[in-house]
Amino acid sequence: MYDLIIIGGGPAGITAGIYAARQKVKTLLVTKNFGGQIIKKTVAIENYPGFEEISGFDLIKKFENHLRKFKEHIEIKIEEVIKVEKQDNLFLVHTRNNIKFKSKTVIIATGASPRTLGVPGEKEFTSKGVSFCAICDGAMFSGKDVAIIGGGNSGFETALFLSNIANKIYILEYGSQLKADKENQEVVKKSKKTEIITNAQLKEIKGDKFVHSLVYKDRVSKKEKTLKVKGVFVEIGLIPASSIVKKLVDFNDKNEIKIKSESCETKTPGLFAPGDINEGRYKQIVVSCGEGSKALLAAFDYLKRT
Amino acid sequence: MYDLIIIGGGPAGITAGIYAARQKVKTLLVTKNFGGQIIKKTVAIENYPGFEEISGFDLIKKFENHLRKFKEHIEIKIEEVIKVEKQDNLFLVHTRNNIKFKSKTVIIATGASPRTLGVPGEKEFTSKGVSFCAICDGAMFSGKDVAIIGGGNSGFETALFLSNIANKIYILEYGSQLKADKENQEVVKKSKKTEIITNAQLKEIKGDKFVHSLVYKDRVSKKEKTLKVKGVFVEIGLIPASSIVKKLVDFNDKNEIKIKSESCETKTPGLFAPGDINEGRYKQIVVSCGEGSKALLAAFDYLKRT
Repeated sequence: MYDLIIIGGGPAGITAGIYAARQKVKTLLVTKNFGGQIIKKTVAIENYPGFEEISGFDLIKKFENHLRKFKEHIEIKIEEVIKVEKQDNLFLVHTRNNIKFKSKTVIIATGASPRTLGVPGEKEFTSKGVSFCAICDGAMFSGKDVAIIGGGNSGFETALFLSNIANKIYILEYGSQLKADKENQEVVKKSKKTEIITNAQLKEIKGDKFVHSLVYKDRVSKKEKTLKVKGVFVEIGLIPASSIVKKLVDFNDKNEIKIKSESCETKTPGLFAPGDINEGRYKQIVVSCGEGSKALLAAFDYLKRT
Repeated sequence: MYDLIIIGGGPAGITAGIYAARQKVKTLLVTKNFGGQIIKKTVAIENYPGFEEISGFDLIKKFENHLRKFKEHIEIKIEEVIKVEKQDNLFLVHTRNNIKFKSKTVIIATGASPRTLGVPGEKEFTSKGVSFCAICDGAMFSGKDVAIIGGGNSGFETALFLSNIANKIYILEYGSQLKADKENQEVVKKSKKTEIITNAQLKEIKGDKFVHSLVYKDRVSKKEKTLKVKGVFVEIGLIPASSIVKKLVDFNDKNEIKIKSESCETKTPGLFAPGDINEGRYKQIVVSCGEGSKALLAAFDYLKRT
């Protein structure tokens, strides 16, 4: 029986954990792993204040060490949570290994995972040329031609990362405009390896044992075109990992949890949702950390009041 | 003429500056100095994720260096702003040295400064025994008896800091309960130097050239009592530095600027207020940083739309 269970080991969950330990709240932090979206970052992080330039891997390691420094005041378990229920004013947290934990409050900070395309070939060739994580898979594409689907920041950051590895890089954007910020666009455009194709609707990923090409429709000319590529990186956004609390919260149209922005409170008393999992407009590491702090302080207030 | 002027050099202002530089927004950051409330912190900071233990001075130096790394993309001026106006859809920022700067958007992140007691002797003996910054003045009280006014976290953190310096420390709290968190209370109680007095209403600070005593009323017995102390540290909260925008914003009853929590927007389009200056419940370094990031991204959206 805990006062608080934190689910998730990304920036929001870890920050909540650091604050919980310092406040001496009886806390369990459960997570599949440490990292969240940070660990997949393909370029150095330059906008977390205090670290001028740091890899996602190194930053999350610093976060994790910071949390583990308080090990006398917080329990940590590496487990996957599959369901959260509320019964008789207590939360029941179920794990994949059939363990149940009880607590008075829950902070769900499980973040979000990559959105998929839903085109023929995507599923079939996942890990055979189709990738959702350039930093994990990039090295496989050394000297090869690849395509990135998505003209937002993730797409451009992936292009930047791959520019030291791949031979030729296409960025396919469905819309007529790129969504990436200017700095990312400028840096990528300097590299002559990258060709940007807007109004491109992906139709199919083709291959035999491994991807060999993709087919897209030019939304202006309406013609279908083929690109010979050995790799397809899907960078079209995130899906919040909120299904484990679906009966306890309200969602917006992106399946993000609705919260009171000031405290990250959900509609269920005692349940808080900081970080990428919620409806917040700006998904940033430092924003998730700030929300982790607020969620813990709000949970602490709740525990004192009830 | 700038796209954005950021006023303030604490965690919120610096984070907004880092994000502005990376987004290549034409930005001026104006501040009296770098630091905000951090630099006055009397104990090591242990809850800014990534740094297990760091002094306020060192953390703000890291923040400032991080910002200055982008010096090609952001102008920085050390000036005091005395007024912000909006005319013909443009902001006019006036400094103490009679300089006017123009911009399309403003982020005000000037934070908050210590609240004063308003009792006889407080003003007279400021810097002669009355202090609002233990880290600045503490060394003057080596081996002496001192009192701290305020039983919240600032009061207890000040007691902790002074426990290596002063002989005897009183903490006077007006209410019947202490507001400090448990960790702070426990650590302070371990030091036998500290005596906590609740229900204590400060009436007067007395001295000749320098403080020699204080008088308080016991709110239960209604009797006035005297403590012989050479130092009085005032730790009763903060006043937001929001007067420079008073015609452009709405305030809550603490004179904190009302905002949309999601974006730090004020009631004036193009004016954003992240950090301690706003009505947010949780005043934390990492919360201010998160808000600085959100304010900049919201300002950037505003600039693109207008």
